[in-house]
Amino acid sequence: MKVLFASTSEDPDHWLPGLQALLSEDEFVQEPGPDVEVALVANPPPGTFERLPNLKLVQSLWMGVEKLLADPAVPASVPLARLIDPGMVAAMTETVLAHVLDWHRHHFRYRAQQAERRWRPLPQFLAGDRTVGVLGLGALGADAAQALRAHGFRVVGWSRRKKNVVGVESSTDLSEILRKSSVIVCLLPLTEQTMGILNSEHLNLLPDGSCVINVARGGHMVEKDLLAALDSGKLSHAYLDVFEPEPLPPEHPFWTHPKVTVTPHIAALTEPRTSIPKIVANIERVRRGAKPEGLVDRSAGY
Amino acid sequence: MKVLFASTSEDPDHWLPGLQALLSEDEFVQEPGPDVEVALVANPPPGTFERLPNLKLVQSLWMGVEKLLADPAVPASVPLARLIDPGMVAAMTETVLAHVLDWHRHHFRYRAQQAERRWRPLPQFLAGDRTVGVLGLGALGADAAQALRAHGFRVVGWSRRKKNVVGVESSTDLSEILRKSSVIVCLLPLTEQTMGILNSEHLNLLPDGSCVINVARGGHMVEKDLLAALDSGKLSHAYLDVFEPEPLPPEHPFWTHPKVTVTPHIAALTEPRTSIPKIVANIERVRRGAKPEGLVDRSAGY
Repeated sequence: MKVLFASTSEDPDHWLPGLQALLSEDEFVQEPGPDVEVALVANPPPGTFERLPNLKLVQSLWMGVEKLLADPAVPASVPLARLIDPGMVAAMTETVLAHVLDWHRHHFRYRAQQAERRWRPLPQFLAGDRTVGVLGLGALGADAAQALRAHGFRVVGWSRRKKNVVGVESSTDLSEILRKSSVIVCLLPLTEQTMGILNSEHLNLLPDGSCVINVARGGHMVEKDLLAALDSGKLSHAYLDVFEPEPLPPEHPFWTHPKVTVTPHIAALTEPRTSIPKIVANIERVRRGAKPEGLVDRSAGY
Repeated sequence: MKVLFASTSEDPDHWLPGLQALLSEDEFVQEPGPDVEVALVANPPPGTFERLPNLKLVQSLWMGVEKLLADPAVPASVPLARLIDPGMVAAMTETVLAHVLDWHRHHFRYRAQQAERRWRPLPQFLAGDRTVGVLGLGALGADAAQALRAHGFRVVGWSRRKKNVVGVESSTDLSEILRKSSVIVCLLPLTEQTMGILNSEHLNLLPDGSCVINVARGGHMVEKDLLAALDSGKLSHAYLDVFEPEPLPPEHPFWTHPKVTVTPHIAALTEPRTSIPKIVANIERVRRGAKPEGLVDRSAGY
């Protein structure tokens, strides 16, 4: 089978040797053509899909597919699969846990005190005193929620459809979840329904002094509303990994805001070591005519 | 039974109402006297032990007992118990995990980049790429080691006597553990054997770019050796919660060192909600003539 690798963001040297080693009979190419049956894509160059008339699968190298869904060149008749990479899921859970613990143990406040050479212990809370609200209970949200639960946090979750995640109280009522949560973790897909969901109306439902962690997409956040909630004291801190646009422009107020931690969209990166076996499995499914894993529901938007 | 509460550090209002509620028949006092049978102590006022001729148990409110052991007024003939507080153990594991993840996910580096408004993703590592060396495999070390293991880190542990902790490769050979560890977590008791253990000789065995987390006692660390290891690049960062003396003096170089995170001895605080039941259980053991939990081995020093 001929497999195209098409990305302006990912380095082919991180992917092709590992894929070729496991699929020695298949041919991996970097130029589109009529005999390509599977396209591995992450920000593909313009004009890629127009030259792939016999495509059987578009396999994203990433978990978020909102750009592919918005691209009219991606043929709606060809199955589109997101990459559910176990390494990326683990990385996201590590990042979420790092931020939640940083806030829970007051480490962000102790850094501010260190800058003033100030020795001042703050009251200790137990994990069970905190309720973490996870927005989105897909592969990423469910894993993070369970890790937080395992550390003793109370965890509530919001998703469009009611989900069952062990130990996590889930609801389809966003207001109910926000009113209970001292920490909000956004792990939603970016769709028409979730665009701008971190806005004043919703942030104002949180208990005073809450914390927002956005590791999903910049489009989930209404920047001026988030800044207002930080400045009013409604929020004690925000950990932001994603922005619109990226990179975050140097003059942006987030960089220097004392209540904002900025990271450069690194919460979780696709990890070739763990995702290559998943891609290989999907190529094998195409070969034997089976249903690929991670298929995107185009009407739901993820 | 008469129970003395003697502390210049802990607030009696955090302890006595809860203890009295569970032990309504016993009398809790704050003045030493001949009819006191159990003394609950944390930095007791000088002269306390001289006025307790009928003591059956010295119950520390803390886990570290090096000051009590060094105090000649504490009668060697009376059993001395450390407090193994489940809330404090959980808090310590949260703190250790927060620091390990902060280092592992490069968050300390991203904070430095944020200060320069610099958007620069760094290479991602998986937890399994990192080996965390836990020094001390007592109640605190074993719990932290298992939590790290559960997150996919490779974990090795050093203790004076060989210990069995599930999933953790333990050794009594310190050099072997140090050579393997990209992160060192010090959770040792402070004894003659462990005083100054974080010195040049030992730090130089670590792989280049390692990280040191000291959440045990300031006396474990040779400050000038640690500073030298940071400045030479042997260490990429140090997370320090404990110092000698405390509070850390305002002019101390740790406060402003770009590679040092300072917290004011708050890694884990004794938590009355979870430790009162443990103290009650030990008082009940004294009442029925049974062996208290957490007895200190005076020859070992913990």
